[in-house]
Amino acid sequence: MSGDPSFMRQAIDLATQNVITGRGGPFGAVIVRCGILIATGVNLVTATNDATAHAEITAIRNACTALSAFELGGCELYSSCEPCPMCLTAAYWAKCTAVYFGNTSADAATAGFDDAKLYTEVSKPAGQRTLPMQQMMRHEASESFAAWTQATRKVLY
Amino acid sequence: MSGDPSFMRQAIDLATQNVITGRGGPFGAVIVRCGILIATGVNLVTATNDATAHAEITAIRNACTALSAFELGGCELYSSCEPCPMCLTAAYWAKCTAVYFGNTSADAATAGFDDAKLYTEVSKPAGQRTLPMQQMMRHEASESFAAWTQATRKVLY
Repeated sequence: MSGDPSFMRQAIDLATQNVITGRGGPFGAVIVRCGILIATGVNLVTATNDATAHAEITAIRNACTALSAFELGGCELYSSCEPCPMCLTAAYWAKCTAVYFGNTSADAATAGFDDAKLYTEVSKPAGQRTLPMQQMMRHEASESFAAWTQATRKVLY
Repeated sequence: MSGDPSFMRQAIDLATQNVITGRGGPFGAVIVRCGILIATGVNLVTATNDATAHAEITAIRNACTALSAFELGGCELYSSCEPCPMCLTAAYWAKCTAVYFGNTSADAATAGFDDAKLYTEVSKPAGQRTLPMQQMMRHEASESFAAWTQATRKVLY
């Protein structure tokens, strides 16, 4: 695999401009298919009051809108920084075919962001995480999956 | 820690109704603070063409809007199913204080969803994942973090 430097340059420029304009964090991303730019995204967490609005999430969401699709088969994600676990998992759900990134999670940590720590957290068993998690009412919750299994009208994803 | 069964019941009912109405997958979530319901969310991936629109992401986004905040300190997340790595990481970024869930990732796998597999993927080193990842242009990308470090006008998150 080999990324196109012009698309990474665009992701980096989006990230830098996002800081310079005071809009948000130093993160930019672009989605590309067959060498064509499909969508872009920047970090909008503080600008839009949305904890999930990382550059990659924003770009994936914009690409889904641009393609009127909930999957981005054949699309490559260029991000100015290694995606955090939220954004990486989003790339999997979206069925992106490749991820190119500039800064690493360690670089992000140096700049004050928790990405590297979150990889450690997510990799732990649920009971060992710093965020307390507890299972409850599993029997009742199974109703929802039973409904899904039995449903005749559903869009698989 | 101890979850409130009435809020989990609400998350499960949202999940089941999401299937019955044909709107989307069997997932529902609610956000609660000090015993008060702040926001709800259901899976809207196929309904809104958004690969990121899992129930928990939708609930977190709605809660951010409801509170006009990009962090949800003091908020608990109730989900009808164990959050996938995307949603779990979103709960960390949002600074939720607890996560309660009904179905497990293994239950989700049985119902045809990739959550458990994605925990394995995210836990691997970047070079060993099924989704190809490649770092490039790290030196150029460091410009964005340098801009962030030097910026005097920024909202930390």
